[in-house]
Parts: sequence; structure tokens; C-alpha cells
Amino acid sequence: MKVLIIGGGGMVGQKLARALAARPLNSDQTVTLFDMAFPGGETPAHKQISGNLTDKAAIQTLLGERYDLIYHLASIVSGEAEARFEFGWSVNMMAFRSFLETLRAEVEASEGVYHPRVVFTSSIAVFGPPFPDKIGDEFLSAPQTSYGAQKAISELMLTDYIRKGFFDGLSIRLPTICVRPGKANLAASSFFSGIIREPLNGQEAILPVPDSVRHWHASPRSAAGFLRHAAGLDQADIGLRPALTMPGVSCTVAEQIEGLRAVAGEDAVQLIKPQPDDTIMRIVKGWPRNFAPERANALGFTADADFASIIQTYIDDDLPAA
Amino acid sequence: MKVLIIGGGGMVGQKLARALAARPLNSDQTVTLFDMAFPGGETPAHKQISGNLTDKAAIQTLLGERYDLIYHLASIVSGEAEARFEFGWSVNMMAFRSFLETLRAEVEASEGVYHPRVVFTSSIAVFGPPFPDKIGDEFLSAPQTSYGAQKAISELMLTDYIRKGFFDGLSIRLPTICVRPGKANLAASSFFSGIIREPLNGQEAILPVPDSVRHWHASPRSAAGFLRHAAGLDQADIGLRPALTMPGVSCTVAEQIEGLRAVAGEDAVQLIKPQPDDTIMRIVKGWPRNFAPERANALGFTADADFASIIQTYIDDDLPAA
Repeated sequence: MKVLIIGGGGMVGQKLARALAARPLNSDQTVTLFDMAFPGGETPAHKQISGNLTDKAAIQTLLGERYDLIYHLASIVSGEAEARFEFGWSVNMMAFRSFLETLRAEVEASEGVYHPRVVFTSSIAVFGPPFPDKIGDEFLSAPQTSYGAQKAISELMLTDYIRKGFFDGLSIRLPTICVRPGKANLAASSFFSGIIREPLNGQEAILPVPDSVRHWHASPRSAAGFLRHAAGLDQADIGLRPALTMPGVSCTVAEQIEGLRAVAGEDAVQLIKPQPDDTIMRIVKGWPRNFAPERANALGFTADADFASIIQTYIDDDLPAA
Repeated sequence: MKVLIIGGGGMVGQKLARALAARPLNSDQTVTLFDMAFPGGETPAHKQISGNLTDKAAIQTLLGERYDLIYHLASIVSGEAEARFEFGWSVNMMAFRSFLETLRAEVEASEGVYHPRVVFTSSIAVFGPPFPDKIGDEFLSAPQTSYGAQKAISELMLTDYIRKGFFDGLSIRLPTICVRPGKANLAASSFFSGIIREPLNGQEAILPVPDSVRHWHASPRSAAGFLRHAAGLDQADIGLRPALTMPGVSCTVAEQIEGLRAVAGEDAVQLIKPQPDDTIMRIVKGWPRNFAPERANALGFTADADFASIIQTYIDDDLPAA
């Protein structure tokens, strides 16, 4: 099985690459990573191709390899898509459309031989307020960010290509990934990881929102697990609505902090510095707090047991390298 | 007020043009119609511009006129979008994005002077089965046609441009328009109008589905009324989710036929010839049957009182010219 991970240099892409190296999908699995850049240091022995998603010729050459399974994880993050309107739409919508069209051309040129699966990483950002307490599988996508709109649109596009039989696939709506290893990024959600990661590394962390904020989390290990699980699903079981909200852990920032206290003690908690930020608060107010992801549960997707497990996963998987 | 109707040569566009001519939005209203072609015969004294939505230069010239209110009614219809995959996406999604980008450029070039309103005609085709008995305002858009996906995507794009403050606007999800004047076409929904229109014109009509089929209808006059009403709404009242399902009449084919009997008698009803068509039945099974359009109701959109009124509207507005 030939696997391609577009966005394979990113955090989730790297986690997935390692998960596939540790436990291959089958005996002849090969994995190719495509991204603008790759992190240095220890990496699995996968092929790496550097390139830009918006470079049509590069994508054409790439997809000419006819991968059986294509993970599409690449996107401009929410904060940047909000700040750079045109750039966000160009990458997150237009380049995804171009990818789908290029892949469709390969499928049609194969005359029935080639039928890949596309696993697209979407986000709970497809939902916008007001919300019910728990968002069910039939709740509308009414995003309040450009990033969320672009993800919702990409889901709709992929769904139609699947419905028309050009390829198999599904969209995986990831929870906010926590604890993200490495440095803070431009995402407005960055602090959810920062308030755990920085103290565990003996550093101060800024908390820009009240600790009553509730949100929906999954560990990087769970995210890689969702993507791996998506590879083996029967398309008929996925059904007519192949955009699935993944399971996760719903908890408040206060509960996150309690988890940190239990694991790392009061000294760690004291490193969290409240510093209210109206811009971030306004963005976070528009984010979902809790879900009832019944369809994903029924399809066997599983997430972390609780926020303490999420912290422990960071300590096991990422703290040693930090 | 300078008004532009893109798709002004189509059936609903012409109805809207006449409605605006009969009752102008204000004292200095001017109306321009843009379409590939226009019907002959009696038309209101509006300016007509022939052109193609996919012609970027033509759209740039057109939008350079800085219309205060732009109705966007143009699209490839559902049957054609399903048959010609690439063409449907090019026109219904890509040309709409190009329209939005061209309009945004005008707005930005005006340095705060120009702030148009865009009223986009969407469709109940954004919904796909399985449905609840009545589809509420928070039910997901999970279309099962390319046309529906393109409409849902256009809604999401317009919503984001509105959210970012580039322009005002909203998307109007039209019910199936009934009774459509003119000739029968190859659309799967054609019979909903045909079984009323043909008998009223002394002609036979084919009924390809059981009379238990329930669907959601509005007259052409109501459709023009929705669009006219949309011009005067306060953007703050429209709120964060400017894609609105319009009110309509939910009734079965049997109820449609009873309406015809009441208006035109048993002889007219005898002109309806049941001729089951599995293909049409399968398509119609995937269509919504009923809605609870509470937000549109609260905003003052009003539809026909019942199906008898829909028939009477055809008799008043279109039968004389038929």
C-alpha cells in the first residue's frame, strides 16, 4: 500500500508518519511525506518530498505516483487565515479544489484501475455559535472564521467527489490538539497546549482567557489514531455523510489546570500567568465546547479517556524530546 | 438605488424585475439585468446586458458600476450540474467566488465609500436525506447533488465575506418554484408544475410519482417577494447565519390535485396521467418534504397561504400569457 501524507512535515503529519512506521497498514506499506519543510532530527525512514500545495505542477507530479491512500493535512492555520483573507482562501479552498481535480484526472486516466482513498483533516472550526450544550451529528456547519468556512467547504467538495465515485474517503473533524509539542504557533488555540506544555518544561505560560472556558480536546496520539483508523473503514459504513466529528475530551481550562496540578504540582501551576486578551477571547467564544459524536463512536474511533490522560500522553511521547 | 440582477433573464429574475418595476425600492431606483440571453416579448424598461458569468472581464466591467444591491440568481441547474460535473463546479462555485473577489476589489478600491448588499439565491437542495419530518434552521447541509453542494459552498463563501464586513447580504434558500410558467423541461421536479399547468391549459400531464409524495413549494410571485423583502432587512437582524430557508407550502401531490379540482374541476384532473418512473421516484425520495423556517418567518418573509393560492397565482400572473 502506497501512502501519501500531504502536510507530512507538520506536527500531526509527523505523528501519523511515526504511527504508520511503528504499525504498518499492511506488509508492503510505503509512506511518502509531502510538505514545504520537514523538521530535523530523528524521523521515520519515509520518503520526503518538499513542495508547495499551491504549485499545480508539483501536485500533478506527486499524484502521478497514484498513491492508494492520501492523507491531506495541509492548511493555513486559523489565525493566519483570519489575518490574511485572500491567502487563506487560496490555500485552504482553492489549492484543495486543485488537488481534488488533479486526483480526479488521474483516476479518470486510469480507466477504472485506480481508486484511491482521501482522508481529509477538517476541524471543529466548521461549527459556529450559538451552540447547543452538546453538538450532535446533525448540527449545521455555520463557521465564524474564514478557516472554518474553508474547512466546511473542503468537506462539501470532497463529499461530492466521493458521492460521484471518483474516490473513497472521508473528512475527519479533529478536536483541538492538546498538548501540542514544540513551540507556540499562530493559532488562536495555541494557549490550550501552552498552559500545560510550558509549565512541564519549567517555563511560564500566558493564559489569555478566563479559566471557565470549556473546549474539546484530543491528544496528538489520538489524532494519529483517528487517521490510522480511517484507513481501514468500509466506505459503505461511512455512508452518505462522510464528514465526521471525532470523539474528544470536553473540559474547562480550570479542569486542565487541575490536571496539571495533579501531575506536576503547584509549582508548575504557578507558571501559568493570566493575561486577558480580548482578541483571543472573542475568537474562543465562537468555539464549540462539547460534542455527541455518535457516528464516529459507532465507527470505532476512540479518543483519550480524560484530560489527565492527555497530559500523560504528552509526558510519554513528547516531553523527553522537549 | 442602483440594482443589478445577475441571472435577470431567467424565470425568477424576470419576475423580480417586474416586481421592482411595479413597486420600486425607492424613488431613484434603476434596475440592470445581466444574463446570457433574455426572453422576447413584453419586458419592463430595465437596462439589459448580455454576458457570461464566467467571463471575468465582463464581470469586472459590470461590477465597476458599483450597484447598491446585487441579486445573484444565475446558476447551472441541478440536472445539468449532475450531468456535467466539471462545468457545474466551474460556474456554480468558481464563477461565484470570482464574482465575490471582483466585488471585494471594488469595495476595497472605494476606501469605505462603497458597501453593496448581495442577495444570493440558494436552494433547499443544500439538504440531503435522511431528514426529520420538518427541517429546522439548525439542520445540517449535507447535499446529495453537486448542485446542492455548490449552493451550500456559495452560502459559506458569501457568509464569510459578509462576516468580514466587505459587504452586506444574505442567502435565500428557495423552495421548489410552482407553478412554473412555460413549457415542461427535463428536470426531475418538472412534474410538480406540469400536473397543474398543463391541465389548466387543456393539455395532458404525466405524473411519474405516487400522489403520496410530499414536497415544499412557493409560487414565482412569492420567490420575487422573498428577494424584494431581502433588500430592506437590517443586516444586524439577519445576524451571524445569513443563509435562510424560506417559508413555503408543504403538501402532497394528492393535495395539489385536490387544489386543481377545486379551481378547474374534474375534467382538468382527468388530464393527469399516472405513469410511474422509478428514476424520478428515486431522485424525489432524496428531497425535503417540510420545513420549520422560523428565522425567515421572524424576519417577515411570507409565502403563499396554501396550494390553492399557488394555483390562483399562476392563473392570475401567467395563464393569460400562456
